[in-house]
Amino acid sequence: MRILILHGPNLNLLGKREPDVYGTLTLEEINAALRTLADELGCEVSFFQSNAEGALIDAIQAASGCCDGIVINPAAYTHTSIAIRDALAAVAIPFVEVHLSNIHRREDFRHKSLTAALAVGQICGFGLNSYLLGLRSIFTIAKKQ
Amino acid sequence: MRILILHGPNLNLLGKREPDVYGTLTLEEINAALRTLADELGCEVSFFQSNAEGALIDAIQAASGCCDGIVINPAAYTHTSIAIRDALAAVAIPFVEVHLSNIHRREDFRHKSLTAALAVGQICGFGLNSYLLGLRSIFTIAKKQ
Amino acid sequence: MRILILHGPNLNLLGKREPDVYGTLTLEEINAALRTLADELGCEVSFFQSNAEGALIDAIQAASGCCDGIVINPAAYTHTSIAIRDALAAVAIPFVEVHLSNIHRREDFRHKSLTAALAVGQICGFGLNSYLLGLRSIFTIAKKQ
Amino acid sequence: MRILILHGPNLNLLGKREPDVYGTLTLEEINAALRTLADELGCEVSFFQSNAEGALIDAIQAASGCCDGIVINPAAYTHTSIAIRDALAAVAIPFVEVHLSNIHRREDFRHKSLTAALAVGQICGFGLNSYLLGLRSIFTIAKKQ
Amino acid sequence: MRILILHGPNLNLLGKREPDVYGTLTLEEINAALRTLADELGCEVSFFQSNAEGALIDAIQAASGCCDGIVINPAAYTHTSIAIRDALAAVAIPFVEVHLSNIHRREDFRHKSLTAALAVGQICGFGLNSYLLGLRSIFTIAKKQ
Amino acid sequence: MRILILHGPNLNLLGKREPDVYGTLTLEEINAALRTLADELGCEVSFFQSNAEGALIDAIQAASGCCDGIVINPAAYTHTSIAIRDALAAVAIPFVEVHLSNIHRREDFRHKSLTAALAVGQICGFGLNSYLLGLRSIFTIAKKQ
Amino acid sequence: MRILILHGPNLNLLGKREPDVYGTLTLEEINAALRTLADELGCEVSFFQSNAEGALIDAIQAASGCCDGIVINPAAYTHTSIAIRDALAAVAIPFVEVHLSNIHRREDFRHKSLTAALAVGQICGFGLNSYLLGLRSIFTIAKKQ
Amino acid sequence: MRILILHGPNLNLLGKREPDVYGTLTLEEINAALRTLADELGCEVSFFQSNAEGALIDAIQAASGCCDGIVINPAAYTHTSIAIRDALAAVAIPFVEVHLSNIHRREDFRHKSLTAALAVGQICGFGLNSYLLGLRSIFTIAKKQ
Amino acid sequence: MRILILHGPNLNLLGKREPDVYGTLTLEEINAALRTLADELGCEVSFFQSNAEGALIDAIQAASGCCDGIVINPAAYTHTSIAIRDALAAVAIPFVEVHLSNIHRREDFRHKSLTAALAVGQICGFGLNSYLLGLRSIFTIAKKQ
Amino acid sequence: MRILILHGPNLNLLGKREPDVYGTLTLEEINAALRTLADELGCEVSFFQSNAEGALIDAIQAASGCCDGIVINPAAYTHTSIAIRDALAAVAIPFVEVHLSNIHRREDFRHKSLTAALAVGQICGFGLNSYLLGLRSIFTIAKKQ
Amino acid sequence: MRILILHGPNLNLLGKREPDVYGTLTLEEINAALRTLADELGCEVSFFQSNAEGALIDAIQAASGCCDGIVINPAAYTHTSIAIRDALAAVAIPFVEVHLSNIHRREDFRHKSLTAALAVGQICGFGLNSYLLGLRSIFTIAKKQ
Amino acid sequence: MRILILHGPNLNLLGKREPDVYGTLTLEEINAALRTLADELGCEVSFFQSNAEGALIDAIQAASGCCDGIVINPAAYTHTSIAIRDALAAVAIPFVEVHLSNIHRREDFRHKSLTAALAVGQICGFGLNSYLLGLRSIFTIAKKQ
Repeated sequence: MRILILHGPNLNLLGKREPDVYGTLTLEEINAALRTLADELGCEVSFFQSNAEGALIDAIQAASGCCDGIVINPAAYTHTSIAIRDALAAVAIPFVEVHLSNIHRREDFRHKSLTAALAVGQICGFGLNSYLLGLRSIFTIAKKQ
Repeated sequence: MRILILHGPNLNLLGKREPDVYGTLTLEEINAALRTLADELGCEVSFFQSNAEGALIDAIQAASGCCDGIVINPAAYTHTSIAIRDALAAVAIPFVEVHLSNIHRREDFRHKSLTAALAVGQICGFGLNSYLLGLRSIFTIAKKQ
Repeated sequence: MRILILHGPNLNLLGKREPDVYGTLTLEEINAALRTLADELGCEVSFFQSNAEGALIDAIQAASGCCDGIVINPAAYTHTSIAIRDALAAVAIPFVEVHLSNIHRREDFRHKSLTAALAVGQICGFGLNSYLLGLRSIFTIAKKQ
Repeated sequence: MRILILHGPNLNLLGKREPDVYGTLTLEEINAALRTLADELGCEVSFFQSNAEGALIDAIQAASGCCDGIVINPAAYTHTSIAIRDALAAVAIPFVEVHLSNIHRREDFRHKSLTAALAVGQICGFGLNSYLLGLRSIFTIAKKQ
Repeated sequence: MRILILHGPNLNLLGKREPDVYGTLTLEEINAALRTLADELGCEVSFFQSNAEGALIDAIQAASGCCDGIVINPAAYTHTSIAIRDALAAVAIPFVEVHLSNIHRREDFRHKSLTAALAVGQICGFGLNSYLLGLRSIFTIAKKQ
Repeated sequence: MRILILHGPNLNLLGKREPDVYGTLTLEEINAALRTLADELGCEVSFFQSNAEGALIDAIQAASGCCDGIVINPAAYTHTSIAIRDALAAVAIPFVEVHLSNIHRREDFRHKSLTAALAVGQICGFGLNSYLLGLRSIFTIAKKQ
Repeated sequence: MRILILHGPNLNLLGKREPDVYGTLTLEEINAALRTLADELGCEVSFFQSNAEGALIDAIQAASGCCDGIVINPAAYTHTSIAIRDALAAVAIPFVEVHLSNIHRREDFRHKSLTAALAVGQICGFGLNSYLLGLRSIFTIAKKQ
Repeated sequence: MRILILHGPNLNLLGKREPDVYGTLTLEEINAALRTLADELGCEVSFFQSNAEGALIDAIQAASGCCDGIVINPAAYTHTSIAIRDALAAVAIPFVEVHLSNIHRREDFRHKSLTAALAVGQICGFGLNSYLLGLRSIFTIAKKQ
Repeated sequence: MRILILHGPNLNLLGKREPDVYGTLTLEEINAALRTLADELGCEVSFFQSNAEGALIDAIQAASGCCDGIVINPAAYTHTSIAIRDALAAVAIPFVEVHLSNIHRREDFRHKSLTAALAVGQICGFGLNSYLLGLRSIFTIAKKQ
Repeated sequence: MRILILHGPNLNLLGKREPDVYGTLTLEEINAALRTLADELGCEVSFFQSNAEGALIDAIQAASGCCDGIVINPAAYTHTSIAIRDALAAVAIPFVEVHLSNIHRREDFRHKSLTAALAVGQICGFGLNSYLLGLRSIFTIAKKQ
Repeated sequence: MRILILHGPNLNLLGKREPDVYGTLTLEEINAALRTLADELGCEVSFFQSNAEGALIDAIQAASGCCDGIVINPAAYTHTSIAIRDALAAVAIPFVEVHLSNIHRREDFRHKSLTAALAVGQICGFGLNSYLLGLRSIFTIAKKQ
Repeated sequence: MRILILHGPNLNLLGKREPDVYGTLTLEEINAALRTLADELGCEVSFFQSNAEGALIDAIQAASGCCDGIVINPAAYTHTSIAIRDALAAVAIPFVEVHLSNIHRREDFRHKSLTAALAVGQICGFGLNSYLLGLRSIFTIAKKQ
């Protein structure tokens, strides 16, 4: 079983900027923690981060046929990208949407997700744990299929 | 450590009605699974379900001083109850909001949560797992405090 | 065949208050007229009134398995209670929504019903006759099932 | 006593088209059932159907002075015709608004009625029975005047 | 010079219905007063009233080439008819929009006119005088062309 | 009989600025034409123009007891001044609202008038003639009282 | 195979009025071009134009059983007529919606079509070619059925 | 003379929770201060607090016939309860709406009150003094009746 | 201690106009009652009324350094003046907003106050008593500072 | 003459994914059909597909000076990309907007096109034929210039 | 060349109130800095500040014929005054709109400017520098004319 | 000191397209003018233009640690890119937002900026001067830090 972990725009800056908001963990540390959990669960994980909407769509399309599940944090594109939504609909791989922060505490324009309606479920507000819970969930779902 | 599990209106019908929508698990089975996980994590859990907004507020108030965290599925009151929001704000116990179904797939009036902005985080769409992930999260948070 | 007649908040005051608005009939007289019609049609009727949203939900849940139809006047909860809507959806008993007054003549916030979309139909504006027409309708529908 | 039954646009197709939506009864059969009920109640009924807004207004105006009540199913014009509303207001004959289907289950633009606020009451969702209940109601009201 | 006076739906009932709202003048009396003023000004007037949107459009189209100005009271169609607006735009005859009552005192849906933006001007609230002032205005404008 | 003619902000610039929009008539010429018509009708007119909302309110209040009618062109204050509306309501002198240009052809924020609902009627789009028709109307109304 | 070409209100004026907006082709010339294309494709075409909503509905209903496809330019009724939408839904003949001008360049109230959601597709902005492309499309679709 | 003091949901927590927001006074101390003022004014006061919407409605209904005025702080129900509004309308006892905090400084959903339109008046922002001013006002009003 | 009492536009007409709406008290009588209460409380009061937004701003600015509190009834400017709001924010004198009538019973555009969010609190609906309660409140607050 | 065919995000997946929604034709087959039609019409066609908004803008800019027309299916970017709209405006090459599916049948956020207002016209709902009709149209238009 | 510097309501308080928000510079110091820059650029500047909308309109009108450009900070009137907008449109002197603070960081009602659409341009957020940049810009523009 | 100048989508076309709208200056000439001013002020400038949202985000991230200020013209992305907003927030370099044209004169969807709230300030409408004023401002601000 193979799970793709997709990180949206600006997540490459994690741990280096605004530690009071996003914590001191870097994206590498998040990926490492996910790899450890994946080993524990018995699945493979691959990672991709990009600031470009098109590159994220390419990665989703490429997952078709080789991934059994996706954990995606679309970051800012959560609220603006119909194209990412369409890519996720097209490949029809089950996916979980995660957010580090609680998007309901932030600006109004972050309350609406264009992708959540197609996800198995959405997890937000738990920092690194949002990703870990997301991986745990998609693993269970992918195993059933 | 003690965690309160709060179930909102109509959740007492779980497993008995609309199994195609909500699955075949009963509320008792959900509670049993939560108790098993609580034992594993090393914490106590207590349970309360009510169809009455006032009774849920009473239960939240009663948790003050004796509970270290709350996992709440406010069900229909998620979208209409400022009073439950105020109760959660008043007792200031960290809480996680969970939903069995993916509320973003349902009617527009279920997309907005009045309580989520005060929660540590929100988890939706994973059935029983929404609760288990919620308990896991609140346990981690409560342990840090 | 058994039909449950549900009266929402403040309907216990009928005939005692604002007779120019709601007429001089008391709730007891409405119930008596419904019982007479039920006898005529050949079905049993039971009655429940409450000012509490939770109690109305409890009553709807309790109807499951013992009632063949519901005539409900949700009064003020028509416009605010997703929880009553969910209860009616969960028990899946056919129901008719009735209103004494013509809600389209009143304040804007009374024009939208949260429950009507799940009802067989809606009748408003005919005073006692709204209930009688409602009973007549639900009887016909329940008999067909 | 004389009651006018007014059928709005496309109702002449009843029973011939989309039987799964509107049932297999033709408009003639609905009219026949209404005539039977009228005989039973002891009143006369006349019928008019048109696809033209202006013709419906003409019919409403012509009812002035010779009809004691109107049962109207304005169909699509329910939601768009201020002119029919004005005609009903002008002739000041008591009327009941009826709909075969439950308009609250359909598209958003069918939830708002321009005429309902002037009606004695509104009945929707009961197929033929919406008309029969409507006739029964307007008969009672007209008899009182 | 020739001016067309167009009366929209339900205006044929003037003076016969709701005299407290619309006064006791009949449409014939309004037309007579307009003819008197036309004689005084030195122009011809013709009159047309219909309850049908299509007939009003036909009349507007027919005015092309034989009328120098239009005084129109579109009544209920003021607020719903893009087709009448398009007809007025197509024939490009200068026109004045008039209303017997002050539409700004009435329901919100009567505050917006679809035709006023194409008119030379709009006059409302003066009863018969709205028409007389309208004729006076269009006469002045038509004379200049 | 005495009629007050009130001109709102920027109307003192008439004829000097933007002649293609507002014509070449100055405010003095408009006032002269109104005085001529007043003589003809047999009434007195007084004039007041101000760019200040407060000064216009003072003028309306001062009219109480000495004027029988008001013709007001509130210009920009039409759309923003609840205070002028309240002044007109307080003195309860019948008034007509006039506009030189057709406000329905202009920006959306000029389509809504805060004062029109209290006026006898509204006239717009006829340049100087809007004022003349307004004076003619208020004269007729004041004479009846 | 037989195709009905339906022209909505004011289209009878084509070529005679506003040639800079709608071109110099008359409706007869459009119909002639459509007949030529129909001959080429090998199908029959019939034509109907009306300014009356009701007459257009009658024509749609009459097409049932004798036409295999409809090309409709509902003109102004595109944006206001639920009744035409209902007629098209009732007869269930595949249809294409066409517009001479690009409705997205015009007033906001022309951007929303009430009928497009039921059409096979929509074509706008190509003048006569909108009709020709529409006929070509409906011919292909009707041939497959 | 007898005045009922009604406290809505979560007000039982006053002084115990969030003292920086709501002050350090407990509900008992507020009630004591109200009793002292009542003695001074020469009227009786009774008190009721509940977290349940239904219980508050029951209390309002019970006041009918034995109370001359109500001071109500509906707390969160101010913004969501049409049922409490209906109860206050039904018993027709004059009432004053009070709030400890200035609701206009808080979230948008607290700016709109469903009950204020039926109250004699509304007082907000003065802490304990909101209640004292409210009692003083309702006493004056009740004495006049 | 010195308190400024500010009266907005049209309040100079009190008692002279619309006594059924605003009562028969004149502004002078209101000021006299306020002076009596001020003597009783032991503070000085000064009064200012203007119909001009700018003059009210000047008065607020002039209060800086010589007044300890403001009681303001901004009347119509409550709903339209950001400039008065800014003046109150700039001088930072604690103030209470009062209204004679219950603004929640009146037109929708009177429900929103631009100044209330900056006030200590708001009192409406009690006629003269709104002012007296306002003075009592600001006195208590100013004494604490 | 040279025409550029632009395909937006996810169109590279055509025929491989969701054949029930988008048909079984691949993008290569669509391009082949377009090339055949281009040969027939006597023009050259070039093709470009990208999932990246920026790459599509680059392609539009590059078309300047070497293409006489564009057929664009902006897919998801239709509804979100002002930047693509600006690119099309800047190069000022006539273009036709096409969609495989009928966008008016889909989610509300697909009903509004940011680019359509600048296009010659828009064609949607005909699958491959949308492209063919689009090429036919732009060919005719480009030939005229 | 002569430039008018216009300061809107409450700007006379600069430097004296809320220095943390608006800085410690007084309006006199801002004017002095502007005079220094004007000398450097080689133009004359005159200054006017008022809290009254009408006085600002008077000043704009008076600039006609004697000023070549205006730098205006309309402060609170930016968002509410159509009358100032109309004055600026009437005199047709090129003007620049400036704001000390970044209005996009403040309340929603400060995001919309009624005057900006008529300005050459808008500068906000740079404190004194907003004015200096504004003067520099209008000088360049006025010199070109 | 080093300042990054960022140009958003389509700005590479400046001077080559639509000179009547954007002037005849090319982007190279704008950059040259900025370099001249930078030399004068005594700071370094670097330039980057891209049509790709992701590339602009990469450039903003790369500026972290080596730039003291940013002048950004996000062009079309001003109104749609939360991701660019997030990048600017993450790197926390002070920045000025500039626009060549006055965005308040253009389509409604260009009035709202997603990035302006995070900028020091915004300048629009002055063509090349918007950039020069922006550089001048950010230089002053960066020097202070």
